[in-house]
Amino acid sequence: MTLSERLAEAALAWRYEDLPEDVAQAVRWHLLDALGVGLAAASLPAGGRLRSALGEEAGPGPATVLGEGRPAPMAWAALVNGALIHSLEYDDTHTGSIVHASSVLAASALAAAEAAGASGRELVAALAVGWEAIVRLGLAAPGAFQAQGFQTTAVCGPPAAALVVGRLLGLGREELVAAVGIAVSQAGGVFEYLSDGSDVKALHPGWAAHAGAAAALLARAGMRGPRTALEGRFGLYRTHAGTAPDASVFDDLGRIWHVRDAAFKAYPCCHYSHAFLDAALALRREGVRAEDVVRVECTVPAEEAPVICEPWERKQNPRDGYDAKFSLPYAIAAAWVDGRADVDTFSGAARPELLSFASRVTYTPASGMGFPDRFPARLAFVLADGTRHERYVDNPGGTPSHPWGEEDVVRKWRANAGRLLAPDAVTAVEGRILRLEAEPDVRTVGGLLRAGVAIGEGRG
Amino acid sequence: MTLSERLAEAALAWRYEDLPEDVAQAVRWHLLDALGVGLAAASLPAGGRLRSALGEEAGPGPATVLGEGRPAPMAWAALVNGALIHSLEYDDTHTGSIVHASSVLAASALAAAEAAGASGRELVAALAVGWEAIVRLGLAAPGAFQAQGFQTTAVCGPPAAALVVGRLLGLGREELVAAVGIAVSQAGGVFEYLSDGSDVKALHPGWAAHAGAAAALLARAGMRGPRTALEGRFGLYRTHAGTAPDASVFDDLGRIWHVRDAAFKAYPCCHYSHAFLDAALALRREGVRAEDVVRVECTVPAEEAPVICEPWERKQNPRDGYDAKFSLPYAIAAAWVDGRADVDTFSGAARPELLSFASRVTYTPASGMGFPDRFPARLAFVLADGTRHERYVDNPGGTPSHPWGEEDVVRKWRANAGRLLAPDAVTAVEGRILRLEAEPDVRTVGGLLRAGVAIGEGRG
Repeated sequence: MTLSERLAEAALAWRYEDLPEDVAQAVRWHLLDALGVGLAAASLPAGGRLRSALGEEAGPGPATVLGEGRPAPMAWAALVNGALIHSLEYDDTHTGSIVHASSVLAASALAAAEAAGASGRELVAALAVGWEAIVRLGLAAPGAFQAQGFQTTAVCGPPAAALVVGRLLGLGREELVAAVGIAVSQAGGVFEYLSDGSDVKALHPGWAAHAGAAAALLARAGMRGPRTALEGRFGLYRTHAGTAPDASVFDDLGRIWHVRDAAFKAYPCCHYSHAFLDAALALRREGVRAEDVVRVECTVPAEEAPVICEPWERKQNPRDGYDAKFSLPYAIAAAWVDGRADVDTFSGAARPELLSFASRVTYTPASGMGFPDRFPARLAFVLADGTRHERYVDNPGGTPSHPWGEEDVVRKWRANAGRLLAPDAVTAVEGRILRLEAEPDVRTVGGLLRAGVAIGEGRG
Repeated sequence: MTLSERLAEAALAWRYEDLPEDVAQAVRWHLLDALGVGLAAASLPAGGRLRSALGEEAGPGPATVLGEGRPAPMAWAALVNGALIHSLEYDDTHTGSIVHASSVLAASALAAAEAAGASGRELVAALAVGWEAIVRLGLAAPGAFQAQGFQTTAVCGPPAAALVVGRLLGLGREELVAAVGIAVSQAGGVFEYLSDGSDVKALHPGWAAHAGAAAALLARAGMRGPRTALEGRFGLYRTHAGTAPDASVFDDLGRIWHVRDAAFKAYPCCHYSHAFLDAALALRREGVRAEDVVRVECTVPAEEAPVICEPWERKQNPRDGYDAKFSLPYAIAAAWVDGRADVDTFSGAARPELLSFASRVTYTPASGMGFPDRFPARLAFVLADGTRHERYVDNPGGTPSHPWGEEDVVRKWRANAGRLLAPDAVTAVEGRILRLEAEPDVRTVGGLLRAGVAIGEGRG
């Protein structure tokens, strides 16, 4: 069997009842997290622009666009929601595959489940298919897509979304194989956005979700795609990664559940800063007062320094909130001064009082700290009298070594969703997603999301 | 200036009045040809499947889907029409760049012109921008996209379509640059369809047109893309072609008009067979009777043989009409027996009487025949008494060396469009396109195309 055929068979075989309970739980939590992150993004001006972009293209349809009161066609809703979910650097990461899975999966699955009138169990099972597919698509060529200039999420996203949407729309085996074949010819997404920090990075997973949805529709109508689209001579890996895929990573489908290893993000900024934020906030909670601190000393894994520390002068003076997401000193300044690092921290212009504190942060790169298995931090607050308060964090909260419980997932959801939804809608959606197995028709959840945007329409 | 900036400035600067008249004429003729080819495709069962694929996704909108009476949203109409136009191997080719330009350009430009209520002059000017952009995007790395496994039309299509749609929607310079940047992250389309002749090849230009339209909408709403999306370190060329672009091919924008070199196809099959069809039909017209011929001898450029002659046994016995498009003996049998090679020749199952004649065709590969500058043919009909009737054709009709006149373009249009449109609609659309500079609002043309599908709704 080809890889597409193996994935299609798994996609059709898995039932909700067969999923280990902690896998179903992880799927539900990551869905709630993604919806919250997307709602927070929709509350900002950039989110409003994105929601309005399609204009007349997006006529009436069955699918919820986060932050909108009107439902839209499935494939367009998938595009907008995927871009919203990824746009704040606040969505989940599977670090081994370097895939931001939920941005593609939650966006495509919710839209297709609404289009199909699927049950909550069907939605969870389809998301599990998507998780185990997209992570393995990344693991089959570790680092190789990036090395050629492609974002892994963007190129592995279309075939994974095609499987998710195809399953929810009721496609058969051959149609699913065709959908993957079509989706591979729609895969793209290059790293050139690094040259000027443009919005394209956020659009990548949205376009992947859109492409997967379109591929499933075309396959359902009888269009065919090559069944060797992944491993063939001109398949996804040889064209976009210059290598053959390691097919063995698909051997444990249904036995190993990679969704268990996906990391939630506690702060809407680069993951490498997270352990430092955990450390700074812990010291603050222990009573170290911001105004007493004259210097913050950071010991940073050398491999992370190019992203969050170099050049230091510029990292101490980010141009705007988006730039600040990749600045260690600015993130620490927010924790130090505000006692938090959240969506508002990284929105709009950089704040003078945070820039002032950022100028007192110093860093030392260090090797052998355990990167990339861990994203650790060593941080010291130095007081005027020379006292040092030091803290070591081996890995941030939300990662598998410091896993989140339901209360953490819910706390983040409430803060994000509450930016846009009325309080009763926040509670209602939360309850439905956490007990998704009891939901007979996911369209109810979409209806609650749309009806709840009372706040958002004023702010968005 | 970056390449995107140069293309955006050209896209904004060119007015209809500045185009040489033969350039405007070529643009009009290629548009008419593309619409006819797309209508012929829409008349076949596969075209009907494609038209129905999007279902509820494609709600009401401003744009014509070929073969449909109801208008649809712009970006979906661009998808379906682009796929229809390319699906018969009957659309035009710019051989130097290996780009099937009209499949992307006609599809995206017509839809955007209808969405914008543009004039005929605006449509012609936008198509000229698209032609000169997409051909140069291919010429900037000759053969390199294919060498990496990408179809040139598919990867150069999105940025070209973004320029065309963006100009028609009235985007400014920075928005056009952003649209190109976004479109590059939506570019894809791999050669794996060669492994099993799937429908994906036809979908490629449709997806490119769709992606370009979506990119223009996102840019109009304020999304940004990298301005070095083409030539940057992780831009289109280095990621999809493994090379830097040859920027010099953009230096003669506005001075050299590559659309003049685009070739019309007289037959809906591989271009390499066309000169043989010209030769066979000429001999037939001169009075050589099919029933007298016992053998046909073909001398084929050695470089073409792998595509239309090898393996000969299989080329003499194509599986179906699509397979027959790449069979020299089957194409010659059609000319010999039927006196024509048209859409019906290559639709449905292979015909026994043509297979019988195909078994009497022989071929000899020859080097030094002038490929790829020309696609020549040497062909002999051998009679039972040993008489030989020989013919040499240096290049097929429709290429720059044997250019078509208006009567050729119109003859092909009428045969194709007449498969689906009522006769008065065929005439009316033909008149409007040939005098497009006099059209105040292109929506009139779309209305005629939609109103004329009386025949098609019965056959499609």
